[in-house]
Amino acid sequence: MMEPAFKHVTIIGVGLLGGSVAMAIKRAMPGAAVAGVGRRRQSLDEALALGAIDTAHLDAAEPCAKSDLIILATPVGAFEAYLKQIAPVLRGDAIVTDVGSTKALVVAAAERILGACRAFVGSHPMAGSDQRGASAARADLLAGANCIVTPTPQGDPARVRRVEQFWRTLGMNVLTMSPQEHDAAVARVSHLPHALSALLMLLPSDKHLPAAATGFASMTRLAGGDVEMWRDIFATNPQEVVAAIDEYASLLARLREMIAAGLTGEIESLLTDARARRQRHTEPNNKR
Amino acid sequence: MMEPAFKHVTIIGVGLLGGSVAMAIKRAMPGAAVAGVGRRRQSLDEALALGAIDTAHLDAAEPCAKSDLIILATPVGAFEAYLKQIAPVLRGDAIVTDVGSTKALVVAAAERILGACRAFVGSHPMAGSDQRGASAARADLLAGANCIVTPTPQGDPARVRRVEQFWRTLGMNVLTMSPQEHDAAVARVSHLPHALSALLMLLPSDKHLPAAATGFASMTRLAGGDVEMWRDIFATNPQEVVAAIDEYASLLARLREMIAAGLTGEIESLLTDARARRQRHTEPNNKR
Repeated sequence: MMEPAFKHVTIIGVGLLGGSVAMAIKRAMPGAAVAGVGRRRQSLDEALALGAIDTAHLDAAEPCAKSDLIILATPVGAFEAYLKQIAPVLRGDAIVTDVGSTKALVVAAAERILGACRAFVGSHPMAGSDQRGASAARADLLAGANCIVTPTPQGDPARVRRVEQFWRTLGMNVLTMSPQEHDAAVARVSHLPHALSALLMLLPSDKHLPAAATGFASMTRLAGGDVEMWRDIFATNPQEVVAAIDEYASLLARLREMIAAGLTGEIESLLTDARARRQRHTEPNNKR
Repeated sequence: MMEPAFKHVTIIGVGLLGGSVAMAIKRAMPGAAVAGVGRRRQSLDEALALGAIDTAHLDAAEPCAKSDLIILATPVGAFEAYLKQIAPVLRGDAIVTDVGSTKALVVAAAERILGACRAFVGSHPMAGSDQRGASAARADLLAGANCIVTPTPQGDPARVRRVEQFWRTLGMNVLTMSPQEHDAAVARVSHLPHALSALLMLLPSDKHLPAAATGFASMTRLAGGDVEMWRDIFATNPQEVVAAIDEYASLLARLREMIAAGLTGEIESLLTDARARRQRHTEPNNKR
């Protein structure tokens, strides 16, 4: 049997991702009222103008007191302050989730602050773009992408099921991992790639840049992403990102030795392995 | 005054890039006869079927003896053998160029083999795709992209001008660098990025890969590229690629220390610099 849908949703932070979640809710759950919370009147006005939210609020407590679903969609660094604001007003049946890109610290803080009510379920919808702000939000940003839900032994299994069902209603493919497994995985497939892209953008001198072509453009696309969001990601997943950097630096050092020593057969074999793995990973039956 | 166009062109190697050059010639220089040379009958038949070439040859000497323009478009590792085959039959006014991705070793070998006739002018049209083979060739692959021409003091300035004009006729934006400047630049904007992409594809375990999203997909696109071509690139530009890896490893080590030490302000500043440089680089009036 379908779990009942949510009737009153509050989204805290109506930028690209929060705005897109709001628009997807309005499309997939037409009966739900959606409240938007933000620090800046301008973002809220943009979200209202897009029809992403029904009401706009500078104060989180007011809409959250009525909501059965609350979604944190600010940069991760602002989560704790909002959780402390809303903890005293939550309904007994409320579910609080988030769209943050790191989970171990976030989930631990949320479980500490929300305490015994077991209201929190961590989520990470893996969708984004190099644009930012509510004006770039799109109802179809999430559809077809993965959403990682990160339950813990301290959480409420019924709420976990309802959160998973919620993301599926928005068209997402739900994966389940512990917060620690999540952080280890995304350090390697998302956080490190972002760092590599930013560093590559800084490497060539102005004299070298005119030779750049489409390969450089695609390898530096991520470097154009939101600075505040990525700063918070590196700040809240430092151990796994450092581990991923160390593993990557070893691979880089190995390739360097092959090239310096002219080990053409070993270079060919490394490139062949990478190409084969890329092809398996992007086969039509796999998610990209 | 326009230099006279070429009447008989031979393209040695009719894969993705050779085939695309041939198709672009047929479109932009309709009077020119285009001969294709290859080791495999199948590639030649594909190129004939596409209308990219007028005649197909397993032996390079025969069409090259009649040609006023000869373009080497095999992987760089095969250039020397072909240059030795065609050197004895070249017309006195022939121009030999190439589409190789590395230039210092290639140009030195070509000038040594072609000797006193000053026929060689190095070129690097910076266009490609992660597909391969004549069947993926497109007449518009080159248009709007950069082509780096690499003259030397030993070369013939009149031939250099004609080669530059040839690439412009195909719609390319021509840059001029010495072979050494070229190799230093492309090591940083093309060869290192390819290495980073291949290594990233090898990093995550099978357990981590399901969490991969669009960022990982775009950062590993290059890893799907032609293995033989890239093996030859690393083999023929080892010094500059190793230097680029060392510079990059230093940047990576610096970011690692910032993250390990929780230097959030420094991380933010690095990401801000990268984002600003990316934006300047991709402004509408710049080539991507």
